[in-house]
Amino acid sequence: MCELLGMSANVPTDICFSFTGLVQRGGRTGPHKDGWGISFYENHGCQLFHDPTSSASSEIASLIQKYPIKSHTVISHIRLANRGKVCLENTHPFCRELWGRHWTFAHNGQLKGIKQRPLVNFRPVGTTDSEHAFCWILDQVKQRYPQRATRGRGLQMLVQDLCVDLDRLGTFNILMSDSVHLYAYCSRKLCWITRRAPFGSASLIDSEMSVDFGTETTANDVVSVIATRPLTDNENWTEMAPGEFLVLKKGLRI
Amino acid sequence: MCELLGMSANVPTDICFSFTGLVQRGGRTGPHKDGWGISFYENHGCQLFHDPTSSASSEIASLIQKYPIKSHTVISHIRLANRGKVCLENTHPFCRELWGRHWTFAHNGQLKGIKQRPLVNFRPVGTTDSEHAFCWILDQVKQRYPQRATRGRGLQMLVQDLCVDLDRLGTFNILMSDSVHLYAYCSRKLCWITRRAPFGSASLIDSEMSVDFGTETTANDVVSVIATRPLTDNENWTEMAPGEFLVLKKGLRI
Repeated sequence: MCELLGMSANVPTDICFSFTGLVQRGGRTGPHKDGWGISFYENHGCQLFHDPTSSASSEIASLIQKYPIKSHTVISHIRLANRGKVCLENTHPFCRELWGRHWTFAHNGQLKGIKQRPLVNFRPVGTTDSEHAFCWILDQVKQRYPQRATRGRGLQMLVQDLCVDLDRLGTFNILMSDSVHLYAYCSRKLCWITRRAPFGSASLIDSEMSVDFGTETTANDVVSVIATRPLTDNENWTEMAPGEFLVLKKGLRI
Repeated sequence: MCELLGMSANVPTDICFSFTGLVQRGGRTGPHKDGWGISFYENHGCQLFHDPTSSASSEIASLIQKYPIKSHTVISHIRLANRGKVCLENTHPFCRELWGRHWTFAHNGQLKGIKQRPLVNFRPVGTTDSEHAFCWILDQVKQRYPQRATRGRGLQMLVQDLCVDLDRLGTFNILMSDSVHLYAYCSRKLCWITRRAPFGSASLIDSEMSVDFGTETTANDVVSVIATRPLTDNENWTEMAPGEFLVLKKGLRI
């Protein structure tokens, strides 16, 4: 299995603190040593880092823990391979362009029979169930909405329906973004938290690290974080229910 | 304008030496300070780094100069913005998936009227001429060859014809890869060199750095490097002629 981390914020925010907690689980406090990746959105630009090595010992992951890349939407993933060998092309998040936007996707779980579903516009580069599922979702979205103009509530309901459908094939905890929205679907295990004023302190479960968000934020900042398991031990994370779908924009649920 | 760097090799090879030469031109020995990017292929996987800041002072660029990412195909670009503002989405190389392969593309030059050319399957995320041209090339390729099965000499001739066509709109020095091939088209300025046994030493023009390739290679290694301007001052680089098209695979011209 794998672990997921996502962030949605109303101001460009760095994810150094949460990412530091996550990467420990990639070979130190957790077994997810088969690669990791992260996507940062800056407006519609997307910066992706992929590494098929253990995040706890990755030099690129070390840089990202120290180097504050400010972003309003982030998706990260650490991998424990079950289907598909350990290699760069099987490392999440996956990225495709649709409607002139970079879409990124990361998945925790397995899907039986997903590769029987035919693909038209998007094809996997690697061999994971996850990338096939992502391509299938984008194919369905593009077939229903060939042009971007029709986005909105209809699109969100479509994405939710597609997630519910895929969930029947196994386990489908996902994070997906089109640069503006962060979509999350919980099949078995995802939780989230929204931080806003008055900000408090938080301490990581997986590392001896604390942060006082009050000194790093302004009164108007709103930042939501989603993760497979809570990353901090002194905050109230909300567990998502099986089958629950969440869309975040600028840090808030919509 | 901008500068390009590409590599094709028959064994996974790091580009630390050449990249160190290039990044100096991104704000120190050259004016190309408006961002930089690099794509590394590992089999069909692709690792991309983008940064809209000056490469000479970029922390991510520093890491890549020191950290030997081994790859058989690399494309890099340092930018001096003319069309399109300085931001992440306008930073080369651009990447799209076609036929289940990551295609990456970097461009030096300007193209008048390119945005009038309609696009079907691929859309730009940013506002550069370059990304529009890349999407147009992939659109033409996909329309002619919807399936991957038909790759080969016909594809190479098509790509060459498309480059010649676009070159009429201005200046079109490019590097493009489908993970196996490195395509180069010279509109005005590109040069290349193939290094193979017996390997010698090389010293960078833009930095006090030399390398003895003999100590880092085996007798069977073949590595070709393409750049806007020669990166070393004691080797014989071959200037490409205006209108010349080059396809490299495993370090060799095909």
